[in-house]
Amino acid sequence: MEDQLSNLLAQAQKLQAEITRLQEEMKTKTVEVSVDGGTVRVIATGGQYIKDIFIDPNFIHPANAKVIKSLIVEGVNMALDRAKQMAEKEMKKITGGFTMPKIPGMF
Amino acid sequence: MEDQLSNLLAQAQKLQAEITRLQEEMKTKTVEVSVDGGTVRVIATGGQYIKDIFIDPNFIHPANAKVIKSLIVEGVNMALDRAKQMAEKEMKKITGGFTMPKIPGMF
Repeated sequence: MEDQLSNLLAQAQKLQAEITRLQEEMKTKTVEVSVDGGTVRVIATGGQYIKDIFIDPNFIHPANAKVIKSLIVEGVNMALDRAKQMAEKEMKKITGGFTMPKIPGMF
Repeated sequence: MEDQLSNLLAQAQKLQAEITRLQEEMKTKTVEVSVDGGTVRVIATGGQYIKDIFIDPNFIHPANAKVIKSLIVEGVNMALDRAKQMAEKEMKKITGGFTMPKIPGMF
């Protein structure tokens, strides 16, 4: 019984270490999305932040203000979604598909 | 012993229900950040998405392309940070400060 318990604890510690390693890795891994045929491109990290945004310079004009804004909101959210999917996919590899409780603030 | 176990399970289920409720609430709660004295403002949800971005129309000019882009990246990341802080603060109220394991995909 004591052996089983220390085995379980060792496994939990190993899993925790793997999760911490993955969190660090995700901060540097990126995804890129493109909206409106490349008018706006957004690069997000697996840590759920925006690394860079590209806006077609020819498109930056006061008359396009509303469209630019919409494309940026769309691109940023798509990139965050994609980054989250990437992080969750990598997490599943570690947890072996075990459904983890949904807790905030990991990525 | 059996009573204690069913008690624990009931508490865990209640906590899970509270977390689910909070997740839904966070999708509608927003934070707003302003950069460069309001040239760019970003509204993010507690669910870690961007709801809206405002760019000062007088500032939208090809000559400002680089600055606009930097301000948006800065504003979006600040807003995401603030939104995460809000969600984590609300989560702590539920979990009573108990440090939850860091798991992806909650907010």
